[in-house]
Amino acid sequence: MLHILFLIAITAEAMTAALAAGRRSMDWVGVCLLGCVTALGGGSARDVLLGHYPLTWVEHPYYLAITAGAALATIFLPKIMRHLHQLFLLLDAVGLVVFTVIGCNVAMQLGLPTGVVIVSGMITGCVGGVLRDVLCNEIPLLFRRELYASVSVITGCLYIAGLYLGYPHLLVTIGAMLVGLALRLLALRFEWNMPKFVYAEEKTADPGDR
Amino acid sequence: MLHILFLIAITAEAMTAALAAGRRSMDWVGVCLLGCVTALGGGSARDVLLGHYPLTWVEHPYYLAITAGAALATIFLPKIMRHLHQLFLLLDAVGLVVFTVIGCNVAMQLGLPTGVVIVSGMITGCVGGVLRDVLCNEIPLLFRRELYASVSVITGCLYIAGLYLGYPHLLVTIGAMLVGLALRLLALRFEWNMPKFVYAEEKTADPGDR
Amino acid sequence: MLHILFLIAITAEAMTAALAAGRRSMDWVGVCLLGCVTALGGGSARDVLLGHYPLTWVEHPYYLAITAGAALATIFLPKIMRHLHQLFLLLDAVGLVVFTVIGCNVAMQLGLPTGVVIVSGMITGCVGGVLRDVLCNEIPLLFRRELYASVSVITGCLYIAGLYLGYPHLLVTIGAMLVGLALRLLALRFEWNMPKFVYAEEKTADPGDR
Repeated sequence: MLHILFLIAITAEAMTAALAAGRRSMDWVGVCLLGCVTALGGGSARDVLLGHYPLTWVEHPYYLAITAGAALATIFLPKIMRHLHQLFLLLDAVGLVVFTVIGCNVAMQLGLPTGVVIVSGMITGCVGGVLRDVLCNEIPLLFRRELYASVSVITGCLYIAGLYLGYPHLLVTIGAMLVGLALRLLALRFEWNMPKFVYAEEKTADPGDR
Repeated sequence: MLHILFLIAITAEAMTAALAAGRRSMDWVGVCLLGCVTALGGGSARDVLLGHYPLTWVEHPYYLAITAGAALATIFLPKIMRHLHQLFLLLDAVGLVVFTVIGCNVAMQLGLPTGVVIVSGMITGCVGGVLRDVLCNEIPLLFRRELYASVSVITGCLYIAGLYLGYPHLLVTIGAMLVGLALRLLALRFEWNMPKFVYAEEKTADPGDR
Repeated sequence: MLHILFLIAITAEAMTAALAAGRRSMDWVGVCLLGCVTALGGGSARDVLLGHYPLTWVEHPYYLAITAGAALATIFLPKIMRHLHQLFLLLDAVGLVVFTVIGCNVAMQLGLPTGVVIVSGMITGCVGGVLRDVLCNEIPLLFRRELYASVSVITGCLYIAGLYLGYPHLLVTIGAMLVGLALRLLALRFEWNMPKFVYAEEKTADPGDR
């Protein structure tokens, strides 16, 4: 089940990344590359940081074909993308919680401490979007607004807590993902945001200004 | 032969990166660092993603000296760089195909599937330039125009197809590189570009807008 | 001793990164993430490039808590940060030399050649700041001005030379760090900079322009 959701999630991520590429008038190669990096970048970053080889797309190169294909398909379907806008918001949220649970699983299989398990889930869920924004020359939206990383952390915490309390794995997985999904959709619907930290200062040489 | 071409390629990449640094008025340290990252970043990204340790410059630290030295030398030779502009376009194209073939070889030695071999060639050939553009705070040119990644993919495909068909290694290497080189130079000469994907929309909250 | 200095250094790095986040009005999550990435990114980049697993924060997840906590604390103490501005310039400089020496030690324990040991120190000391600037959508300050990477290289060279000449480890560590610290503070005080490389050209298609 998680595997099918994973395939849906990387497809959706690649397609929304393709739209981001289209907004910046990238060429077809850029669209494909940005799609692959966004969809598979979170898992790759996690695996590289945890030393978990081989990477997912090295073991299953057809993931590259799926994401590149999904990104390319988006080029010919911009009309449809516009109509399915709500659906893609949903799929993007599904991707976030699916990636998070998968990331937690990887870290748990490596026997890593709880803190790292949660961070592993967050990296898997969020780094793809950060890479996309950096490659699009933007400050990552993750850092600026929306409950995105927070939803990932909450999903991861629920998942681990559930397993720790001994509930059945399937139940915990579905439960944590549903809560995370609901939270993300509510945040989108009601435009919940984290408070901002606004710091202005008299301009002086400053290490933080570097 | 590939090794000598590799040394020429990293030197050329470091020098063109130094010019990019000079355009942004970086200081000497920045010129050196950008030169090293651009010339050696593609191979490093490949090795980290494939878990292929030690990295090239860790095993042969003099590559760092060559690239940093080439970048520094560029500072004192901007006049010459201007006159050799055509030569550097050529050397940059040579670098692309040489890096691609080297990247394919590394992945083949690791026994990876064909799709990953081609991607490994493309990463080796192209990521250095992507890192340079990200560090220069630009959307990577690779994503926007020019047949660059495409040339790398075509070179890699020809190389693998040739080996698969049982032609002699040397012949295949030279053949794939010559075709890739010709394609790249023709693309530069006639300003061939991939078609662009331009997507504009009514502004709404959107996952791809993140 | 190095360990205590390390804890002080990551705290200071996280807090100055939090101020950089505040200047860009990031939200609380962004402040935490930028703090963690800046404080722990240099060591993580070094470990990934050298294949030195597990990463520091994977082995000691409480480093994540310290840096995230320090970044969050900064949100509530902007007034204090302003008054302690000089102190943080000092702590940032301490962090630079401490990270450098730690990075050199890691590479030496792996038995790597001298050139790589120095680069390992520089990566540990400087990459955190580079990641922060890239995520803040700026050209890394490291590439543009201030003796920062240079101080790191000099500290690393002194450290290795001292050990090579057979002086006691403690003496060499303190000596190299004090020289590096003095150099950095003098550079800040007297605004020493590396010379810049300014390159302007008649606009033409150019590989370095990619």
